[in-house]
Amino acid sequence: MNAPLPSHAMPAVEPRPVPGAMLEALRARFGERCSTAPAVREQHGRDESPFPVTPPEVVVFCESIEDVSAVLRLADAHAVPVIAYGTGSSLEGHLLAVQGGVSVDVSRMTKIVQLHPEDLTVTVQAGVTREQLNREIRDSGLFFPIDPGANASLGGMAATRASGTNAVRYGTMRENVLGLTVVTATGEVIRTGTRATKSSAGYDLTRLMVGSEGTLGVICEVTLKLHPLPEAVSAAICQFPDVNSAVRATIQMIQMGVPIARCELLDANAVRVVSAHSQLGLREAPMLLMEFHGSPASVQEQAETVQALTADCGGQDFQWATTPEERTRLWTARHKAYFAGMAANPGCRSVTTDTCVPISRLAEIIDVSVLDADASGLPYYIVGHVGDGNFHLAYLVKDGDAAERDIAEALSHRMVQRAIALGGTCTGEHGIGLHKIGFLVEEAGEGAVQMMRTLKRALDPKNILNPGKIFTL
Amino acid sequence: MNAPLPSHAMPAVEPRPVPGAMLEALRARFGERCSTAPAVREQHGRDESPFPVTPPEVVVFCESIEDVSAVLRLADAHAVPVIAYGTGSSLEGHLLAVQGGVSVDVSRMTKIVQLHPEDLTVTVQAGVTREQLNREIRDSGLFFPIDPGANASLGGMAATRASGTNAVRYGTMRENVLGLTVVTATGEVIRTGTRATKSSAGYDLTRLMVGSEGTLGVICEVTLKLHPLPEAVSAAICQFPDVNSAVRATIQMIQMGVPIARCELLDANAVRVVSAHSQLGLREAPMLLMEFHGSPASVQEQAETVQALTADCGGQDFQWATTPEERTRLWTARHKAYFAGMAANPGCRSVTTDTCVPISRLAEIIDVSVLDADASGLPYYIVGHVGDGNFHLAYLVKDGDAAERDIAEALSHRMVQRAIALGGTCTGEHGIGLHKIGFLVEEAGEGAVQMMRTLKRALDPKNILNPGKIFTL
Repeated sequence: MNAPLPSHAMPAVEPRPVPGAMLEALRARFGERCSTAPAVREQHGRDESPFPVTPPEVVVFCESIEDVSAVLRLADAHAVPVIAYGTGSSLEGHLLAVQGGVSVDVSRMTKIVQLHPEDLTVTVQAGVTREQLNREIRDSGLFFPIDPGANASLGGMAATRASGTNAVRYGTMRENVLGLTVVTATGEVIRTGTRATKSSAGYDLTRLMVGSEGTLGVICEVTLKLHPLPEAVSAAICQFPDVNSAVRATIQMIQMGVPIARCELLDANAVRVVSAHSQLGLREAPMLLMEFHGSPASVQEQAETVQALTADCGGQDFQWATTPEERTRLWTARHKAYFAGMAANPGCRSVTTDTCVPISRLAEIIDVSVLDADASGLPYYIVGHVGDGNFHLAYLVKDGDAAERDIAEALSHRMVQRAIALGGTCTGEHGIGLHKIGFLVEEAGEGAVQMMRTLKRALDPKNILNPGKIFTL
Repeated sequence: MNAPLPSHAMPAVEPRPVPGAMLEALRARFGERCSTAPAVREQHGRDESPFPVTPPEVVVFCESIEDVSAVLRLADAHAVPVIAYGTGSSLEGHLLAVQGGVSVDVSRMTKIVQLHPEDLTVTVQAGVTREQLNREIRDSGLFFPIDPGANASLGGMAATRASGTNAVRYGTMRENVLGLTVVTATGEVIRTGTRATKSSAGYDLTRLMVGSEGTLGVICEVTLKLHPLPEAVSAAICQFPDVNSAVRATIQMIQMGVPIARCELLDANAVRVVSAHSQLGLREAPMLLMEFHGSPASVQEQAETVQALTADCGGQDFQWATTPEERTRLWTARHKAYFAGMAANPGCRSVTTDTCVPISRLAEIIDVSVLDADASGLPYYIVGHVGDGNFHLAYLVKDGDAAERDIAEALSHRMVQRAIALGGTCTGEHGIGLHKIGFLVEEAGEGAVQMMRTLKRALDPKNILNPGKIFTL
C-alpha cells in the first residue's frame, strides 16, 4: 500500500469567516442563543480525539427544526461552514471547525416526539441522549439497545453510524434507524423513511445520511426501532489465560449461532484499569463479559452452551452476575473503560483504533497487533465488541508528545492495513472524521471515495456541511 | 393528497437509438453473445408487471465484470440506455426498455466467487439465484434466508431491496448485503463495503446501491451475510374465522418479541387457490403459516407461546408440520401463490399491491382494503409477510381490459394512501419501477424525491442507467 500515512497534523485550510451581516442576522434571530464567547466556542471545538481544540466562530443553540433551517439558509447564502454538535463525544475530530463557521448545537432538542410502543418505534429530537431515551421509555416494556461508551446524542449516533456492546444481537444505528428529518445544505427540511420496518421505496436516503458525519445534512429528528425488554437477562464473566483463548471462544459462539446479546473482551491491561476505577476486585487476566437475553429457558440454554465452550477454550473463574445491580455494576464499569484508561494514565491522551474484521480473523489480528504494541513500549489496553469482530486498541500517549503520538499513529496505521488485508474495515463504529481520511482511501479505493465526493458535491455544492471531514475535496 | 393518479399507461418518451457504430463495437466484442433477435429482445422487455412488452434494442449476455464494464463504456460514449437483467421476475416494470437501449443480461454470471463459512459470508456473481446459492452452500451448515416468491437473481434482489418470508427474523437485502461490486455509468468498477459485519467508513454506498433498481450502477457481485442453519425447525398452520383474527394474533407475537422466523397470512381466497394448485386439501379459511427456528427447547417454547396466543384470537385447526418434507411442501405452495393465482384465473394478469405499515395498524388497513376490494367485484386474494406489516393484495384483471385495470389501479392507489396515512410505505419489497413513480412522491414528498434526482444526476449525468424508473427526471 503506497498511500501516504494519514495526516494527524491539522489540515492547512483557509478558514471561511462568518461575515458581519450573517452574524447580525443570527443575533437578531437567536439573541442569547447565539454565542461568540471564547469558552463556548472552545467547548464546541473539541471532541475526544487527540487533535488540538479548533473552535467555530459562532455557536447557535437550536431548539427546533426551524431554528436549524434558519441557520442553514443563512450559511447557504453566505457560503459559511456549519457543524452539527450533540454532546461532543465523537472520537475522530468530527466536530473540529477546521474551516471555521457555525456550530449548530442541538443539545437542547431533547423532546421525545412520538412514542409508539405498540409498533416498537419512537421518534426523538436529535439532542436526546441514549440514556435519556431509555429512561423515558422505561415504562413501555421496551428499550433502545445501541450504547456507545459515551452518553451520546441520538443525532450524533446516527451521524457516525454508532454501535456499542449490543450490536452483535441488535445491530447498529444502520439497522435501527427507520427514518430521519434532515435539514439540507440549502435549509430545506426533508423526511426520509417511514415507520414501517421495511421498504423498497426509492433510494435509501436514511442510510445515506446515517454515517455521513454531518457532511450531507443536519439530522434533526430520528425515528428508531425499539426492542421488547427481554423476559430474562443473565450476565457472566469468564477469565482466560490469554487473549487468544478468549477470542477463540467468541469465534465459536458466533459460528454456532448462539444468539448472545453482548460479548465484550477486555485484555489484562483493560481489566486492571477498569477493575481499579470501578473497584471490581478482578484478577488481572483477559476477560469476556457476556450477556444473554431471551426467555428464561432460552437464556439458561445459551448460558450453558457458552459456559461449556469457554471451558473448552481454557476459560477460568466463570461467574454469573445474577442480580440486576451486579449486572449494572459490571456494564457501567465496561462503559467507563475509556475514562478509566485516562484516569490510570494522567496527562495522557488516547489514540484509539476501531478496526473490525471478519470474525474468523479476529484472533490473528489481535495477536499480531499485541506483539506490535508490546514492542513499541507505549502503554495500551484492548476492549472490544468481539462478537462483531470489532475491537479497540487504545495507545496512551503523553499529551503534546509528538514522538509518542507518531509511534501510536504508526501502530494504528499498521493495524488498519492488517484489517483491510483480512477483509475488514478501518472503523467499525467511530467514523472517519479527520483522523481516518487516509485510511478510508486505503480501504475503499480511490474510485469509491471519488463516488462519495461526487455525492457530496451534488448535495452540498458550496461545501458548507462539516467541510474537511471523511475525505478531502 | 393532490398528486395525480400514478400513470399506469406507458410513459411517452423518445427512444434513444443504439447507433450503428456502437452495435458494431458490441458485435465485435461479444459475437453471438450480442443479440438483436426479436424473441430475445421480447423476453428481455417484459417482467411480471401488467405493462406491455417493451423490448430493448440489443441484448448482451455478459459473463464477467469486464464484459459489463465494456458495455457501459460504450453506452457512456454513445449516451445509450442500459438495463441490467437477471431473471426477469420483477413486478413493477423495472426491466422495460422505455427509452430503448441495451439489456445487460447477467444471468450467465453464476459463480460463487468466495465462500467463507467460518465468517458466515459469501460473495456471488449477480446472476446466481437464491436457490442456486442455497444448493451450493448446503454442506456448509449455513443458509441464505431472503426468499422472494420467484427464484430471483441475487443481483436483482439487491437492486430491488427484496425480502420475502424470512424477513421478520433475518431482515431484508438491506440488512444482508455486506458489499457490492458495481459498474458505474462510465464503466468504472468500484467495490463497496467489506466482509466485516459493521463499518462506519464513509458514506454507505452499499445501501445507496441496494434498492436503486439499476439506476445508479450495474451490480456485478454481491457479498452476503449467511446464517447458521437452525438446529431445530418447526412449522405450523392455523386457520382463523376471519382475517382480522389472524392479524391480531400476529400483532401480539411481534409485540411480545417472539423470535418467529416466518409468519405468513393467506386469506380464504389465497388458501383456495394455493390449496388447489398444490393439492394441500385445506379448508377455505384465512390461515397463518408459521415457522420457528432455534434450539429444540427454544423452538418448543416459541411454538407453545404462539399456539396459546392463536387460540386466544380464535385460531382453529392448529397443525404441526413435523417432517422436513411436509414443511417444504407447505412453503413451496406458499411461494407458488402468485402462479396459483394466475392459474386459477386464466387470461388474467395481477395488479399486486405491496404496502407495509407499522404492525399495530395492520388489521385496520387490511379490513378497510378488503371492504374496498369486495365492493369492486374484482377477484382478489391476499398473501402477506404479516410479521413485517407487509402484505400483498393481488387484484386479478382480464389481460387487456382497460376498465378492470383502472378499477384495480384505483383500489391500489387508495390502499397506498391509507398506508402512507398510517405511517407506512407504498412498497415493502417490490420497488418503484415504472408503476409506483407517483406513489413515491406521495410517500416521500417532493423534497426527498428531488434529493434522489440530484443523486441520480450526479452519478449518471447522461441518464443512461435504467432511465425512466423510480422517478421522472
